[in-house]
Amino acid sequence: MEFDGKLIEQVNTNPLYTAIGIRIETAQDGIVTARLEPAPAMCWPFAGQPHGGVLFTLMDTTMAWAAISGQPEFGSCTTIHADIQYTRPARGAFFTCRAEVVSKTTRISFIHSTINDADGAVLAMGQGTYRIMKMPLV
Amino acid sequence: MEFDGKLIEQVNTNPLYTAIGIRIETAQDGIVTARLEPAPAMCWPFAGQPHGGVLFTLMDTTMAWAAISGQPEFGSCTTIHADIQYTRPARGAFFTCRAEVVSKTTRISFIHSTINDADGAVLAMGQGTYRIMKMPLV
Amino acid sequence: MEFDGKLIEQVNTNPLYTAIGIRIETAQDGIVTARLEPAPAMCWPFAGQPHGGVLFTLMDTTMAWAAISGQPEFGSCTTIHADIQYTRPARGAFFTCRAEVVSKTTRISFIHSTINDADGAVLAMGQGTYRIMKMPLV
Amino acid sequence: MEFDGKLIEQVNTNPLYTAIGIRIETAQDGIVTARLEPAPAMCWPFAGQPHGGVLFTLMDTTMAWAAISGQPEFGSCTTIHADIQYTRPARGAFFTCRAEVVSKTTRISFIHSTINDADGAVLAMGQGTYRIMKMPLV
Repeated sequence: MEFDGKLIEQVNTNPLYTAIGIRIETAQDGIVTARLEPAPAMCWPFAGQPHGGVLFTLMDTTMAWAAISGQPEFGSCTTIHADIQYTRPARGAFFTCRAEVVSKTTRISFIHSTINDADGAVLAMGQGTYRIMKMPLV
Repeated sequence: MEFDGKLIEQVNTNPLYTAIGIRIETAQDGIVTARLEPAPAMCWPFAGQPHGGVLFTLMDTTMAWAAISGQPEFGSCTTIHADIQYTRPARGAFFTCRAEVVSKTTRISFIHSTINDADGAVLAMGQGTYRIMKMPLV
Repeated sequence: MEFDGKLIEQVNTNPLYTAIGIRIETAQDGIVTARLEPAPAMCWPFAGQPHGGVLFTLMDTTMAWAAISGQPEFGSCTTIHADIQYTRPARGAFFTCRAEVVSKTTRISFIHSTINDADGAVLAMGQGTYRIMKMPLV
Repeated sequence: MEFDGKLIEQVNTNPLYTAIGIRIETAQDGIVTARLEPAPAMCWPFAGQPHGGVLFTLMDTTMAWAAISGQPEFGSCTTIHADIQYTRPARGAFFTCRAEVVSKTTRISFIHSTINDADGAVLAMGQGTYRIMKMPLV
């Protein structure tokens, strides 16, 4: 399915995204893009750099929407497992994340994701396994 | 090395921990315990449950302090990789995390970690690889 | 459940274990121990050291038996995901592996594992997610 | 660097690949393709399906050559960590693996890999971290 503008706004209006600085930008048929403009509190211990856990949160939530948008109807999911590699320091004012469903069964989606900086360099790459549920997430 | 009370306080006084609700409790010779009392904004999309990225952040930061406390002198580290499994829903008012250095070389620490709920049930388990640096983290 | 001596022998009599040099030693209630005496062909590219894929195979199969022995009846399982860290070179004539179910649901087991050398040093640590099936594996 | 036909043959002539049924096909500038025609002994416990550890070995060795071919001179490497997801049963007479260096520093390569069946379906996806060494591997 595809998230229209109204659903994107609904998805983005939540306290976690506001506190961190995450926005989902597009979500269609198992491919999702998101953007992180980290709130100042999220940049620790290295000045100006979002914590690795913040980058993971960006990646995990983007993969989750990929799992959900890869289904015919809007539903929800939970993370079974995720693996992340940090390939270089996260520098810059914003970061983009892309997640894509690579394979799926009826119940499980397998997803690959990368986070890039404003220059397009890969900062982090990850893969996750998500359990699909039918109850809508928001 | 062991973190004394003063160093623990210094470590805990940072904007990220305050925003999320993390506190390091003990850190000695590669074994660290921490506590999460998640701020309300961190509990989304499931009411009362910290987001998986918040649990990951707790685990990643606890593993990082394990890597640092496993060295003879206070220094810093960066995460190379981390893998997390979510074994059950995270319910309750607080959560504890324990991380332990299982093996290390001069430059890299390999760490295992679990997050438990107030009843002692394992909510998440993970392992990470950390690059050791000599420059103090805080 | 516990694997008795007869079942252990049945489990160990397979072409893969013979080609590699794997033997399950004990399996009870989600905890399994195994031993690797690597066949010469398995030690490449570093002389006398089993390939990392051979160590992974030892760990994966030991974790699978942990998942199976963690069930009330003998069944089977498949690996959803596994993560392995190699903490030091694998030197010596034999290696031991231990796997333990840390958490499980009706359908999925979450397992932690380590491989040690003859001196007890950890060579590899891993965690895996296994889907439980009722059909007996052998 | 690129592996010429002679180097590919040298790389493929080893007891592990012969025992398992692995062949490297191309290796250039951090991108490597390989092929698995599993020896009968490698197909256990599910008839006709290579063990998950065999698929991992294919992926790990393909990623290692990707790390090596991503360097200016022929050298070697060791696996620090690898994560694999099994997305569907491995059926068919042969399988192909592709690995690509996504990011690298002077000392470490971060690599993504997939294994496909003869129909092009993804059977497994993985990512690994490799330590680069200058001493030639073969």
